Amino acid sequence: MPNAYPLLEEQYRKLARLDHALTFLQWDHMVMMPPGGSEPRARAIAELTALRHELLISPQTGDLLQNAAGQVTVPNQRRSLQEMEREYQRAICLPSDLVKAQALAGSKCEHGWRSQRQNNDWPGFLANFKEVVELARQEAQARHDVAPSRFPTAYDAMLDLYCTGDSNNFIVDVFATLKKVLPGLVQQVVDKQKGDLVPDFVGQYPLDQQRLLNLELMKCLKFNFNEGRQDVSSHPFSTGCRGDQRITTRFRDSDFMDALLATAHETGHASYENGLPIEWDGLPVGAARNMCIHESQSLLFEKQIFLSRPFIAFFINRLHSFLPITAEFDAPQLWAAATRVRPSYIRVEADEVTYPLHVILRYEIESNLINNTIKIEDIPEIWDTKMQEYFGLSTAGNYRNGCMQDMHWTDGSFGYFPSYTIGALNAAQLFAAIRHTHPDWQEKLAIGDVRFIRDWLKDSIWSKGSTVDSQEIIRAATGEPTNPDYFLRHIQDRYLGGLY
Amino acid sequence: MPNAYPLLEEQYRKLARLDHALTFLQWDHMVMMPPGGSEPRARAIAELTALRHELLISPQTGDLLQNAAGQVTVPNQRRSLQEMEREYQRAICLPSDLVKAQALAGSKCEHGWRSQRQNNDWPGFLANFKEVVELARQEAQARHDVAPSRFPTAYDAMLDLYCTGDSNNFIVDVFATLKKVLPGLVQQVVDKQKGDLVPDFVGQYPLDQQRLLNLELMKCLKFNFNEGRQDVSSHPFSTGCRGDQRITTRFRDSDFMDALLATAHETGHASYENGLPIEWDGLPVGAARNMCIHESQSLLFEKQIFLSRPFIAFFINRLHSFLPITAEFDAPQLWAAATRVRPSYIRVEADEVTYPLHVILRYEIESNLINNTIKIEDIPEIWDTKMQEYFGLSTAGNYRNGCMQDMHWTDGSFGYFPSYTIGALNAAQLFAAIRHTHPDWQEKLAIGDVRFIRDWLKDSIWSKGSTVDSQEIIRAATGEPTNPDYFLRHIQDRYLGGLY
Repeated sequence: MPNAYPLLEEQYRKLARLDHALTFLQWDHMVMMPPGGSEPRARAIAELTALRHELLISPQTGDLLQNAAGQVTVPNQRRSLQEMEREYQRAICLPSDLVKAQALAGSKCEHGWRSQRQNNDWPGFLANFKEVVELARQEAQARHDVAPSRFPTAYDAMLDLYCTGDSNNFIVDVFATLKKVLPGLVQQVVDKQKGDLVPDFVGQYPLDQQRLLNLELMKCLKFNFNEGRQDVSSHPFSTGCRGDQRITTRFRDSDFMDALLATAHETGHASYENGLPIEWDGLPVGAARNMCIHESQSLLFEKQIFLSRPFIAFFINRLHSFLPITAEFDAPQLWAAATRVRPSYIRVEADEVTYPLHVILRYEIESNLINNTIKIEDIPEIWDTKMQEYFGLSTAGNYRNGCMQDMHWTDGSFGYFPSYTIGALNAAQLFAAIRHTHPDWQEKLAIGDVRFIRDWLKDSIWSKGSTVDSQEIIRAATGEPTNPDYFLRHIQDRYLGGLY
Repeated sequence: MPNAYPLLEEQYRKLARLDHALTFLQWDHMVMMPPGGSEPRARAIAELTALRHELLISPQTGDLLQNAAGQVTVPNQRRSLQEMEREYQRAICLPSDLVKAQALAGSKCEHGWRSQRQNNDWPGFLANFKEVVELARQEAQARHDVAPSRFPTAYDAMLDLYCTGDSNNFIVDVFATLKKVLPGLVQQVVDKQKGDLVPDFVGQYPLDQQRLLNLELMKCLKFNFNEGRQDVSSHPFSTGCRGDQRITTRFRDSDFMDALLATAHETGHASYENGLPIEWDGLPVGAARNMCIHESQSLLFEKQIFLSRPFIAFFINRLHSFLPITAEFDAPQLWAAATRVRPSYIRVEADEVTYPLHVILRYEIESNLINNTIKIEDIPEIWDTKMQEYFGLSTAGNYRNGCMQDMHWTDGSFGYFPSYTIGALNAAQLFAAIRHTHPDWQEKLAIGDVRFIRDWLKDSIWSKGSTVDSQEIIRAATGEPTNPDYFLRHIQDRYLGGLY
């Protein structure tokens, strides 16, 4: 086979076309589908997933990869081949019986969790969850066994699925720093904010008007409506393909801030996806680098741009005009209310200062769980102990707002959580570099100019795709690899210094 | 292979799962997709279509069909096998080069047609259309050649794709009757309506309110919103799967009747699809019988139910309440305006009395075109001659409102048109049987009760799927095969007798 590499490109583009179908069937499922569609949709998705998997792990793919290795000399193609190989290895290292068992156990556990969480029913949840963990341990072991030199522990191999290239050792170091500094910082911020008079957002905000306001925010953030759309779903998410980015949010009539933050967040994800290198479209090397970079883009839009003082000052007129009832707040009041810090039970409702502690708590538990150094039954107690240590809050007996609050573990997605915090760190570091390059950034944001940020991100992040490792992307963009100091400095500047 | 039949069921259910994906990707394309999604969507759809085709015509399918033939003894399974065989033969009889060439030529011709029609550009259209016809002739010949005894001419084989089981001979007879009677009937109706004072619908009808009004109509017609939804697209259509029927319509602020008729029509299509036999779901024998039955269901909802005097009398209060500006019409005035008959150029805007003549004109041209007895270049002249003969209208030089008005031929869908009229005939005949069974039908419709009609249709039509031939369905439901007398009687009763 002299032309192995071009044949591989065709093979992976075929996979991408199946992914396209899966992507939009899943979007439809979350956003449009009436309840009666559940069963046929689940069957169609399972069929396509199996077809895709068979195609990826076919002997033909294996042969082509082997042949291409000796043929490809252009550096870009080498990198492309490497990412193809990565995807292939990730798929072929798992026995198909394990994959099927996981799909069943995960779907059962997730389905049960929806009511068990409501009912604070840990024993009921545990009955399903045990199998999920058991299978995840097998998965981690299998992934570890094919590359024991790259993955010192089984958990390292799971982490690599989401934080690809950002090693567990690196994360251990970063989290150690945060764990040392953050609890004290949280206390300082809470003390400083004590006695601040902040307005209460609770009111009646018509959903139709909120919808228009959020579209306006997307327009301000330069979302391209010829290449995407926003809809409503029960949890905000973003998905799609080049040229067709779909983001969602949810609206509550008692609060408007929640949807705006979600819209800014998902616009960041969508902008990254739509800015990926067009020349590698449909190939693994053209895909988003990893979730640590992905979350950095969403958090940069949400926390660094939208929640900045100058942008809030710019946006407040629009808020007042779409929701006249908000005229009672001015920009500084809105900013004060939106940057309120307080230790709390629920990760998804946490502010950016306490958020990393929620992640570290989960990371410490899931890594030990997968590496078999703690027992599943002990999770609630460990959770409670850590909550007391990091937040001064107890979750004893409160499973619902403790270890049962997140969906990630229910389907076996162990290793995902750290990317939220590495993403937040990256966002702060990237934004520091942007501020450095554009000293007039506050004047620009104050008139709603975000083009300079998008251009910078497109050059430094989006257009890189997976052509280089994540730490190379961060280093090339900011001068050094991910360094928690930028995030800590951001917290100090915003929450103690009152800047930005 | 001792278990060939069960294996075939699994094989065809797999095809149905791919169809599911294609169905909703196409729906999304027409209803939701931003322009930027066109290219990747087209690639994904082409990939899945090719995958589906390969799976269907695989040697494995052929072997299983051959083996199963000697094994299946249960009558229902025999019928199921027969429908599997039909689908397989339809796919395997065409060379794959021809299929690809048709896809390309059809897409080019249809794309060009969108502007050429606007510009009345027959020569420009002809340049692309020639190849479409040439390839369609090849397709028809290939389909004819595998079953020359069933298909006396090449066109018969094309017709069978849409009117499956309703032969060309049968259609020739039916159309001969209509052609003899209808022109005179049209003249009588036009004369009778001359001087009638009918209100003019032209006004300003807010789109939001129209949307709610149409959802209300669907509710009245017992559309199940747990198993479907309505959206907006540039042309009304219906698609979906069991449990998830998607219908669309379009709204114009200058007219409200158009959307209501389309909504009733598409609700009929969707009701049929959702009432197909659940035990055969996903297999060819469980699918809709043919387009003559499909159109009978949509036209029964649109023309027989919605446009009936008692239903209009029931619905008028809702119309008035959603669109207060319509309070100036009462029910008899609305009915008079909605049943106005007048010879016209455009098929899709035609009333139900003149509509069959539009279809017969097209049928006469397309059958001769495919059987190679007229030249493509002569179409405009033949069209003009027939328009003068059937309607007293000339389309000389007016290609846009003449032979270039429809999309069907642009992608080679020759043989489709007759099903509209056979459908209208079936609808009238079925509704006559319903009236016979339910002598109090007018009292029922006058209070918005349509349940008795749905129950009757579900028993007599929907639940049959493709387990029997279409004429058997009509015979079992009404006592005789499709007979144009019922339609002609319906026209006389409604338009000359002033009944219903």
